[in-house]
Amino acid sequence: MSAVVTAVERVRRAYARIAAADRPEVWIDLRPQAEAEAEPALVDARVAAGEHLPLAGTVCAVKGNIDVAGLPTTAGCPGYAYLPERDAPAVARLRAAGTVVLGTTNLDQFATGLVGTRSPYGAVRNALAPERIAGGSSSGSAVAVALGIADLALGTDTAGSGRVPAALNGIVGLKPAPGRVPTEGVVPACASVDCVSVFARTVDEAEAALRLLADPAPAAPPARRPGPWRIAVPAAARLGTLADGWAEAFTAAADRFAAAGADLRDLDLTPFDRVAAMLYEGAFVAERYTAVGEFVDALAEKGGDGLDPVVAGIIGAARDLPAHRLYADLAELDRLRALALAQLGDADALLLPTTTWHPTFAEVAADPVGGNARLGRFTNSANLLGLCAVAVPAGTVRGLPFGVMLVGRADTEARLCTLARLLTEPPVRLAVFGAHLTGQPLNGQLTALGGRFCGEVATAPVYRLYALDTVPPKPGLVRVEADGAAVAGELWELPAAGLGTLLAALPHPMALGPVLLSDGTRTPGFLCEPAALTGAEDITRTGSWRSYLGAPAGARGTAHP
Amino acid sequence: MSAVVTAVERVRRAYARIAAADRPEVWIDLRPQAEAEAEPALVDARVAAGEHLPLAGTVCAVKGNIDVAGLPTTAGCPGYAYLPERDAPAVARLRAAGTVVLGTTNLDQFATGLVGTRSPYGAVRNALAPERIAGGSSSGSAVAVALGIADLALGTDTAGSGRVPAALNGIVGLKPAPGRVPTEGVVPACASVDCVSVFARTVDEAEAALRLLADPAPAAPPARRPGPWRIAVPAAARLGTLADGWAEAFTAAADRFAAAGADLRDLDLTPFDRVAAMLYEGAFVAERYTAVGEFVDALAEKGGDGLDPVVAGIIGAARDLPAHRLYADLAELDRLRALALAQLGDADALLLPTTTWHPTFAEVAADPVGGNARLGRFTNSANLLGLCAVAVPAGTVRGLPFGVMLVGRADTEARLCTLARLLTEPPVRLAVFGAHLTGQPLNGQLTALGGRFCGEVATAPVYRLYALDTVPPKPGLVRVEADGAAVAGELWELPAAGLGTLLAALPHPMALGPVLLSDGTRTPGFLCEPAALTGAEDITRTGSWRSYLGAPAGARGTAHP
Repeated sequence: MSAVVTAVERVRRAYARIAAADRPEVWIDLRPQAEAEAEPALVDARVAAGEHLPLAGTVCAVKGNIDVAGLPTTAGCPGYAYLPERDAPAVARLRAAGTVVLGTTNLDQFATGLVGTRSPYGAVRNALAPERIAGGSSSGSAVAVALGIADLALGTDTAGSGRVPAALNGIVGLKPAPGRVPTEGVVPACASVDCVSVFARTVDEAEAALRLLADPAPAAPPARRPGPWRIAVPAAARLGTLADGWAEAFTAAADRFAAAGADLRDLDLTPFDRVAAMLYEGAFVAERYTAVGEFVDALAEKGGDGLDPVVAGIIGAARDLPAHRLYADLAELDRLRALALAQLGDADALLLPTTTWHPTFAEVAADPVGGNARLGRFTNSANLLGLCAVAVPAGTVRGLPFGVMLVGRADTEARLCTLARLLTEPPVRLAVFGAHLTGQPLNGQLTALGGRFCGEVATAPVYRLYALDTVPPKPGLVRVEADGAAVAGELWELPAAGLGTLLAALPHPMALGPVLLSDGTRTPGFLCEPAALTGAEDITRTGSWRSYLGAPAGARGTAHP
Repeated sequence: MSAVVTAVERVRRAYARIAAADRPEVWIDLRPQAEAEAEPALVDARVAAGEHLPLAGTVCAVKGNIDVAGLPTTAGCPGYAYLPERDAPAVARLRAAGTVVLGTTNLDQFATGLVGTRSPYGAVRNALAPERIAGGSSSGSAVAVALGIADLALGTDTAGSGRVPAALNGIVGLKPAPGRVPTEGVVPACASVDCVSVFARTVDEAEAALRLLADPAPAAPPARRPGPWRIAVPAAARLGTLADGWAEAFTAAADRFAAAGADLRDLDLTPFDRVAAMLYEGAFVAERYTAVGEFVDALAEKGGDGLDPVVAGIIGAARDLPAHRLYADLAELDRLRALALAQLGDADALLLPTTTWHPTFAEVAADPVGGNARLGRFTNSANLLGLCAVAVPAGTVRGLPFGVMLVGRADTEARLCTLARLLTEPPVRLAVFGAHLTGQPLNGQLTALGGRFCGEVATAPVYRLYALDTVPPKPGLVRVEADGAAVAGELWELPAAGLGTLLAALPHPMALGPVLLSDGTRTPGFLCEPAALTGAEDITRTGSWRSYLGAPAGARGTAHP
């Protein structure tokens, strides 16, 4: 998210991309290019004057149910539009950090839907497969990011609107727990559980935006037990019907967490499933009537111009739900929440497929309500349960994006992002030659960071090895111009985040740098600073640290599980 | 609450008192005396065996909507009765501490009312004025305590059922914040805000019982700012219509807090009043239908035998309240809660009259719903706002009990009880002769404890005064057989609780004991242990510590505000 171009240039590129993409249905109100170009000049001037604006040089799209000063807030219904005088706090916070808002994006009307088709402004086509849905309700915001038009986009998430379209368009959707980001200036869907969410192409960008958006945490995040990550993963049999190939893709994602050192455990999804079903089948839908029901009723009486018939049907049907049933549902929710949290236990996250299928427009039209319900099976419960979640890409199936979701307790957004990076960032390789070898004193650092042993390696014959005067004793590997030799070591694979941790804790005189291996490839590995070699014993002749120590090379295999 | 008699004897006395009181409507199911007498023998045996049972030797009454194993739970409706297999946790916790349950008590049916008249088991007469109502809905429990039959009684409190009858019968009613005492095994009125409450004759007894009843506090109590107690007290003009003489009695109670050193400040009651009105006028009443509505409807169809017509009317009318209105009310409640808590600010408590009038049975019959609403004006809001409260006697008006209520944030029950003792326990007097005199180094201890200067005093001429070797320097006052003299000092008034604090912190060689004053009365005052006198200078000739120090006596008046 650092500014690689000026804000002015970034805005120009965005409009060029908008023109090239030719997806007019993404926007409800796109700011005229001339107007949008006035603002970034100011951003650039502030940066030039030395101000720190973390989002300078970025552009942002805002879902059409969130107030942007000077653009109509429509919530996807032209007749509902009003012109807000000021930005919603979520928008204001991103703007204060230097981003430029391009416009407001299309959505399922009144954020009622997960399909992205329920809008008089047009059904939003998927960024990668235009004959399929974009998912919703934050359809336009997700596609604007997926097409590379916007760096960031704001969505909202009640049933999964900030996650389902992330999964279907191959981007990241980060949904904080209810209450973390103010919903002032947002047209309510279900006011008590609505969340402002953020879309980005990487977990880092989404997390950085959330830090700007969120109110200071009301409490410290729940403590995590020391030891490896713990991820609750339902057995495949508990997942119900998924699109062809998605169960396998989900298992592969779970395997990647296991390979990164996480403990996976099964859990019973029943309480999550029952909460998910309650969102539309019970009395909770009445909150949508509280928000816009009288408006919808009045508009329907006048002919319903601009009203989506499916949305109007859902909201209208909520009019007569009795309050005593709502109380019963709220009590049942309390009961199920306790069961769900017990299932979550001390897990750092629950891993789920973000959604269950990726329908075409024709498939949605054939069963608008049932098809929508299938999309929300895994997302519907999070907000009622007070949880946060991040939806991340997890490869493709039959050429279409597949996504998984990490769900966690309130205030664990940062922890979920750390976990998500295990999946989204390819692991890095690291060659080790001394105290980090299997069975040696610092090997535990690698395993604690999720490191995995890949095999024995030897360097190209251009190195010398020295015994350094360190605690614990370590060798120093140095590349030489002449008289080099091959040095034996091990190759490990580490999560990218783990490498950063390792580097941050590295003591003098050790260094990480490229190591030329015997097969001619380069890989990062342990080197050492030259100053440490003065007076150190040259042990190159032994061929490896292990030989120097006199330990049999075979001891390695037994020490590593 | 210490056992002054054996448990067996206490139960015998309770049944004698039941017979003498002749108030059969207090009980729904009174245990047969023979059965009730088997249990206390076991309690006595356990105490004799050395077990610590804090409630041994006490007897307890339980409101008829709380499960007592082996007695029918009726909630005031014979047709609703079921026979619980086990005690509600609240009952079990008191029993585990050694109390003996006498039986279940009468109540406004389904705890729907504040009058104590809405019951097929009879209208409960006030303990002190039988032509007037006992108040409800915990009518029988309050009267059982007020008549001296039970030491403790469990009630429930949704709109004020644990406080209004305490006020009308001249006893203490302590209502924790929702969630502090489990409501498992309690027939719900409004399940989300129902509280189990406790009645006792003193604040100490009620507080001790609550400590046994409550779950461990989920969080530390809100911190209080150092300095004097802060009590929010609405101006008389904000109190609306009160019974004759009650406004004056309320002002007198507030004055007693001021005299005890508390800072009183005005507040705007509007958000509290609006929340109070919402409890019955809005959609919240639908929760009563959730609890028992289907049962009430079915019974009404069969002729309504045993159904109170006013209660059936209230619950039946809640059937058709729409859920979307409930959501609107819940959002409005959130808004009003923020306003109410802002009005409370950093005050330790809000002081209010517990109720507004004390009607006769005829007055209630003339306007059953309106008269009931008047009773709940000040109590209705506490549970919706998540607050705790203690109702305490504050004298009598026209021969009838008058009560006030201290209301505070969740988890401040203990603080409210400390404040309540300022009102219920008469202040104690203390004669001071040295470092605690006005303007002297330790005088701040007295003012911090709520002490109040009452005047100058002199002892009878039977004392001698010594300058002790202490830090800060203090005199020692000793009564002598001969050669005594009068010593001048000051008389202070302290809250009883403050005296305990002072005594607990008293350093050697100081002591508190009776001091004979020049007018022939005795008052507690500062003395000293004889061992400290060895080698100390006899300064009796100076007549006072102040004269010895050479400070002019007139300096006192200016140092004290």
